[in-house]
Amino acid sequence: MLLLSLIIAEAALETVPKSIAKHPSVVKQASKIGKRADEMLLDRSYHHSAMLKLKDTWKRGRPDLVHFTLLEATSTPLYQKNMLKVYVHTTANKAIFLNENVRLPKSYFRFAGLMEELFKNRKLRSNSDVLMELKDMEFCDLIGKLRPTKVIGLSRIGVKSSAEEVAKIVNSDTVIVVGGFPRGHFSSNVSMKIKYTYSISDLALEAHVVIARILYECEKILFK
Amino acid sequence: MLLLSLIIAEAALETVPKSIAKHPSVVKQASKIGKRADEMLLDRSYHHSAMLKLKDTWKRGRPDLVHFTLLEATSTPLYQKNMLKVYVHTTANKAIFLNENVRLPKSYFRFAGLMEELFKNRKLRSNSDVLMELKDMEFCDLIGKLRPTKVIGLSRIGVKSSAEEVAKIVNSDTVIVVGGFPRGHFSSNVSMKIKYTYSISDLALEAHVVIARILYECEKILFK
Repeated sequence: MLLLSLIIAEAALETVPKSIAKHPSVVKQASKIGKRADEMLLDRSYHHSAMLKLKDTWKRGRPDLVHFTLLEATSTPLYQKNMLKVYVHTTANKAIFLNENVRLPKSYFRFAGLMEELFKNRKLRSNSDVLMELKDMEFCDLIGKLRPTKVIGLSRIGVKSSAEEVAKIVNSDTVIVVGGFPRGHFSSNVSMKIKYTYSISDLALEAHVVIARILYECEKILFK
Repeated sequence: MLLLSLIIAEAALETVPKSIAKHPSVVKQASKIGKRADEMLLDRSYHHSAMLKLKDTWKRGRPDLVHFTLLEATSTPLYQKNMLKVYVHTTANKAIFLNENVRLPKSYFRFAGLMEELFKNRKLRSNSDVLMELKDMEFCDLIGKLRPTKVIGLSRIGVKSSAEEVAKIVNSDTVIVVGGFPRGHFSSNVSMKIKYTYSISDLALEAHVVIARILYECEKILFK
């Protein structure tokens, strides 16, 4: 059976870095929700002024965006029929391994709570089953572990194509890589591991739209 | 030019009804966020116990779900190129008219804030432009106002088809109707106005997945 993998790469998902944990906007929110600052998700909606000091700040602190991309991927029949593995690789070089049949909450509050638990305990369980696992891992280590036959990146600056055409060249053990950040392109650490990069629209599509389209076209071929 | 309309029908989006505004779970959250109870969005994540008393409770209080369906629709090239009009019809018979080029926030907190403002003031503006408008309107009134040539519903209990096939029968002034509720089917008030109802998958797809797929297939035809 064909098994497809999706990596949401350089995803803007992390806990508040120690370097800004004492910034007033961070301390204020932590006290409001009764959490330790460095156990909260970094979120531009709350921490914009604190984030100005961070390296690559424009690529970080968008857990809302990662939430949508993950919901998009896990809502597909491909994932529900265990024909798709989903991974998140983060800007801070963590890798999240989603197990089969994970049903993510649509409520952002609940999603954020789960992610905070994952970053703290490195594993999320439901009864005895592991739902997700967090590992320290660079993008190249994740690719090394998956050992795909083909790595396809989707990016606006890729070769002009369409979701339909890209789905046709997907074969067993292909990894599809979509950026989990709000703006910009893959960093060199990621792009050096991607052999083929395609753009599936003339317009700049949101990551969740790219995921919806490519997985749908793959499904059409696989379910034929 | 072909102009397609999407109605997210019986959407689980409303403010807290007066009948449960004094329930402890509602009062507690209102006090926490410093808002009047009846100006907050009804949200099952917080108000589950209060909602048990409500009629059709299982169809209500899921603004997170409506947020995701709206983001899916407004993130498409069809909407961005002004070839798609988007409407939300709510369980409490309000209709929300989205204007062109509305960019909804991905942050749920910001989305909820905008919706609360819309329910309060009936109009959302950015400078002098009206972004959205809320009107008291039953589903049949909304259809009457749009005067479509064809109304197509998408529902798991419709005639078995595919997004590709349904897109082929879309023509000028077609309205596509997708349910904005977590479970169940269209109520009779809605289904009586829908001439053709199709199911585009063997599996129960989330509303946002249905929207992503049908709009993508329409776009493929329209952009050819």
